Amino acid sequence: MPDHPPAAPQPVTVLGLGALGSALAVAAVAAGHPTTVWNRTPGRAGALVAAGAREARTARDAVTASPLVVSVLLDHEAVHAVLDPVADALAGRTLVNLTTTTPEQSRELAAWAADHDVVHLDGGVMAVPATIGGPGSEILYSGSRAAFDGARPLLDAWGASTWFGEDPGLAPLYDLALLAGMYAMFAGFFHGVAMVGTAGVSAGDFARRAAPWLAAMTSALAEYADVVDRRDYAGPGQQSLAFSDLADLVRASEEAGLATDVVDAVQALVRRQVDAGHGAHGFARVVESIRTPAPATAPGGEG
Amino acid sequence: MPDHPPAAPQPVTVLGLGALGSALAVAAVAAGHPTTVWNRTPGRAGALVAAGAREARTARDAVTASPLVVSVLLDHEAVHAVLDPVADALAGRTLVNLTTTTPEQSRELAAWAADHDVVHLDGGVMAVPATIGGPGSEILYSGSRAAFDGARPLLDAWGASTWFGEDPGLAPLYDLALLAGMYAMFAGFFHGVAMVGTAGVSAGDFARRAAPWLAAMTSALAEYADVVDRRDYAGPGQQSLAFSDLADLVRASEEAGLATDVVDAVQALVRRQVDAGHGAHGFARVVESIRTPAPATAPGGEG
Repeated sequence: MPDHPPAAPQPVTVLGLGALGSALAVAAVAAGHPTTVWNRTPGRAGALVAAGAREARTARDAVTASPLVVSVLLDHEAVHAVLDPVADALAGRTLVNLTTTTPEQSRELAAWAADHDVVHLDGGVMAVPATIGGPGSEILYSGSRAAFDGARPLLDAWGASTWFGEDPGLAPLYDLALLAGMYAMFAGFFHGVAMVGTAGVSAGDFARRAAPWLAAMTSALAEYADVVDRRDYAGPGQQSLAFSDLADLVRASEEAGLATDVVDAVQALVRRQVDAGHGAHGFARVVESIRTPAPATAPGGEG
Repeated sequence: MPDHPPAAPQPVTVLGLGALGSALAVAAVAAGHPTTVWNRTPGRAGALVAAGAREARTARDAVTASPLVVSVLLDHEAVHAVLDPVADALAGRTLVNLTTTTPEQSRELAAWAADHDVVHLDGGVMAVPATIGGPGSEILYSGSRAAFDGARPLLDAWGASTWFGEDPGLAPLYDLALLAGMYAMFAGFFHGVAMVGTAGVSAGDFARRAAPWLAAMTSALAEYADVVDRRDYAGPGQQSLAFSDLADLVRASEEAGLATDVVDAVQALVRRQVDAGHGAHGFARVVESIRTPAPATAPGGEG
């Protein structure tokens, strides 16, 4: 952000006024960009209009208002439901899709956009609505590099912008990969909350200890990554998979009458490597359990 | 640590010379405490003896050498295997068990100790061997307060020492609860590594982004804890369970050919609350999925 000159006004349309879409529109208006907003269910634009945005009455009206159209909708299906009927109006414009999708869905939308002469850029928002435009807000992009460069003055008003590559699936892949870490950490934290709760310890007391502990443990990730990249699971100084057995954790959870979903899942990753004869290898080898799914135990076990 | 005068020499015996036991013995010697060491398999004490420790030839010899005996063994069963035959020699002494156990196992050992006139203190080591005695090393204790206070000069040589209460199960409960968070975070990180790896992104590139991201996300834990303690899952400003649906994450993982153990486990916690009609409530409500296990779907389903 800091290495860009003050932004030239860049007309933009925001489709979808949930918490995130509204925050993006507010930041666009605040940065001086002429902003058109639209929401399928009317009545959400009042504060935005008061702040200086224009509310479009129809999706077609919204799309034709700006050369740059940003979609922030519920999911991939909602994006098609809104855009398919106005594909002709979208032709020649740039579509920045900030709706959370899978990489395959992003690639599908990029192909659809190409078919309709629409320039496509995918974005994964690594921020909560309240922090959009503030420090720590970050959005990951992939798809058209030209679209990314052209939209920079606007994109940088929302947070730190990084382009990952022409493959439109890269940003959602990175986005979901980071969310996997976050949700797993949160789930593990809540498991800990439930454990100490059985002895009358408050969640707040536990959080005061768990938050700095988990933050400190992130310092191990660079070394784990190095092991994975070198596939050096037998190298010195690693905590072995056999030692990382979570049997105590699973047993203590059962003794406390708790659900063991989270600890069972981690234990399964460890066990698959130990059962394959790699118990003396380092813990980072669990990534191989994720890369190679266990054979299904019953027909139709997927999904 | 800083509020204690220089330690008076405090003779100590360390049973078990794995990586952790050896690190504890090294730190005890370095702090000037007369240190006796013993390991079931001989031949591990060479460096320790060179540093000034005394090696005992038998467990009985080791136990009788010091009023304070520290056990750092493989597991709960190993503790009994070593101590049961020398219980008479242990009588009148203090046993600090730093072996990882479940809370129930710790309570069992405390009862055994009481039966044999042994003072019992349980400790959970929140440090890796290399950091024992250094900054960031922390050991959680529960059990006899008098034993904790009496052993402080020695315990503080190993790291920050906190006593949680007379219930000997408290320290292992806290220990395992923190480990649950750590292992879940690591598993989520490795899931992310596997995801971006399918697009040719290195684990190192991912870690450079994931480590600060996860560290930043720990700032959410205090607020989650507050919601849990107030059971205020319907309060304003929370990301809803319905919005926290991990379907995209699970689907993207399947599309990439990856094992979904970790994301499935988190998704199951979310789904149980949504299915119970709480989709509009905040994400922190997943703790209720952990507190109340789902009914077993088959007889004997517990593991």
